[in-house]
Amino acid sequence: MIVEGLLTSTSTDGVTNVAPMGPIVHGDFESLTLRPFAGSTTFDNLTTTRVGVFHVVDRVQIIAAAAIRRLTEVPDTFPARKIAGAVLSDCCRWLEFEITDIDCSSDRSVMRAKIVHSEVQRPFFGFNRARHAVIEAAILATRVHLLPRSEIATQLGYLKSSVEKTGGTEETAAFRMLQEYMLEHWSGVASA
Amino acid sequence: MIVEGLLTSTSTDGVTNVAPMGPIVHGDFESLTLRPFAGSTTFDNLTTTRVGVFHVVDRVQIIAAAAIRRLTEVPDTFPARKIAGAVLSDCCRWLEFEITDIDCSSDRSVMRAKIVHSEVQRPFFGFNRARHAVIEAAILATRVHLLPRSEIATQLGYLKSSVEKTGGTEETAAFRMLQEYMLEHWSGVASA
Repeated sequence: MIVEGLLTSTSTDGVTNVAPMGPIVHGDFESLTLRPFAGSTTFDNLTTTRVGVFHVVDRVQIIAAAAIRRLTEVPDTFPARKIAGAVLSDCCRWLEFEITDIDCSSDRSVMRAKIVHSEVQRPFFGFNRARHAVIEAAILATRVHLLPRSEIATQLGYLKSSVEKTGGTEETAAFRMLQEYMLEHWSGVASA
Repeated sequence: MIVEGLLTSTSTDGVTNVAPMGPIVHGDFESLTLRPFAGSTTFDNLTTTRVGVFHVVDRVQIIAAAAIRRLTEVPDTFPARKIAGAVLSDCCRWLEFEITDIDCSSDRSVMRAKIVHSEVQRPFFGFNRARHAVIEAAILATRVHLLPRSEIATQLGYLKSSVEKTGGTEETAAFRMLQEYMLEHWSGVASA
């Protein structure tokens, strides 16, 4: 099973990085397989410090902003319990991990992470179609260079309907931010 | 905000009914607006007993089966704490409610429900694209009589890709069940 959430990692200078991440979860969160791209901040941090925190979240604004590199500041955090890392205060639960194995033989590295500590922060709000539509839109936004515009536009049409019917102001704003990002990309391509 | 979950209601004979439900949530689950269709078992039970239990869930097999009336038996339950109702053991949290107001002036009734008790059962597994794809497919299945086949087929194509990439055996089986239900409907229409 793949779970979409947020990962914090810390540089050797102590700077926290927040990135969306969809690790493969083994067992009931006993270990994770992470696949950060070589050259990403997450990759660099995990390679050097070999620890991090994965967050199960039920809100989507930060995932959406981080996916298109518009997360201007690190959200509120507190120190992790068992490792030198940062926990995002707004999460459902967090999982502190140590990297046990790194395979860099392809562009998309494969890291095995052992969970060394986890805690529940707050209960799940519940399945909300708009929140998932924002996650799908965020994934499309990261593929705007790769997929045909017509295909993305068709999918966005379906997703927009879910956001309008079932979302609140946060979901509506996050969806609009992603739409605008894609429109900017396309207008840049058109005028290039 | 609309949350998709499961609702149990009980007849005057004590028979428990399980139905998918997407209530509007007010505040932090202080009250719900439910819209069961007049004539449904949920509608009948809530109109007579005026109590029920809404469940925040993170698994989708029961939602999928109940949406197409293929839930053959009531899953494991235990008695509700404050009302005469049944709580599904496999949930993230449950909310026991009393109906305070019923408006039957349209086909889709509007009921206001006040939460009288809630408890957390287990932590949220996490955002999984396959689980949401199953929910979207379940909604499409309930609209198979209303929407053009080509439109449903296009959406199912996108959803199937999420299930294959991110799901486990439960999500794969639930998605296949929904697909087969829709195929049966279309083959019936074609041969009619």
